[in-house]
Amino acid sequence: MIILGIDPGSAIVGFAVIKKPKNKYEKPKVIDFGCILAEKSQLAPKRLKTIYNEINKLIKKHRPDIISVESLYFFKNLKTAIPVSQSKGVILLAAANKNIPVFEFTPLQVKMTVAGYGRAEKKQVQEMTKKLLDISGFNLRENGRHKDDATDALGVALCAIHRDLLFK
Amino acid sequence: MIILGIDPGSAIVGFAVIKKPKNKYEKPKVIDFGCILAEKSQLAPKRLKTIYNEINKLIKKHRPDIISVESLYFFKNLKTAIPVSQSKGVILLAAANKNIPVFEFTPLQVKMTVAGYGRAEKKQVQEMTKKLLDISGFNLRENGRHKDDATDALGVALCAIHRDLLFK
Repeated sequence: MIILGIDPGSAIVGFAVIKKPKNKYEKPKVIDFGCILAEKSQLAPKRLKTIYNEINKLIKKHRPDIISVESLYFFKNLKTAIPVSQSKGVILLAAANKNIPVFEFTPLQVKMTVAGYGRAEKKQVQEMTKKLLDISGFNLRENGRHKDDATDALGVALCAIHRDLLFK
Repeated sequence: MIILGIDPGSAIVGFAVIKKPKNKYEKPKVIDFGCILAEKSQLAPKRLKTIYNEINKLIKKHRPDIISVESLYFFKNLKTAIPVSQSKGVILLAAANKNIPVFEFTPLQVKMTVAGYGRAEKKQVQEMTKKLLDISGFNLRENGRHKDDATDALGVALCAIHRDLLFK
């Protein structure tokens, strides 16, 4: 089972493709991860088109069984909520076009899953994600893999695997 | 010049297609208006797919030169902001795919344009819209035309015409 994890944003969208292990004692295999970068100078419609096209390419290449998306329900301000939700809209559309089920996880759920503690610091969560997954074979300088958004996408992909349901 | 006006929503999306008149003294011609109805019982991805497909059909049929979208920047609660913005995301994507410029107007701008008064009641705005545009030839029972969302889409389409720019 292949999981595509996505951390939506208006200009930077993190993505991660991981494979569910055969049992609880193996690590999930990281197939790819990185960031989709939409030009900040462009207007929203063009940026959404870039994000949509790149998500479609990832789906075509990796044929995920599940798409796992980080979803915010509390925003510090509405100016962030609107563009991030617009971006999530085209991601959900790409999933619906291929009939791929979508799971949504909040940052709290990601923290609980990865660091076992809902109030964990962002840095802790990112360190734990890197420990739970083997990303040593990847060049971190490529494809925005060094960015937080890419690590966040790995975390939300892990959430989908850790869901009890998937282990039944 | 053909304008496609859109009032985005998570389950009901109002639309209106109007034609800019030759001069300021003629009324814009209403070509079509109504609502896209996405099943409320369906999950967000499926609903977004319905909205996206229907917007694409409207674009293909009417070949608008401009798309005019009602945009909220203040929401009573975030639970509305997220799904409405997701819906707006796929509408902007449909516009970007065909390189159609998008104008956004707030409800305040629509009120000012249509009723000449920013604090006008919703009902007043709707009555004025119907007076500014001739919709007598349309069957209001068809295609959700009796719904507020359809009238709101007429209002936001009118905004694009009333913009000084378009009269230059």
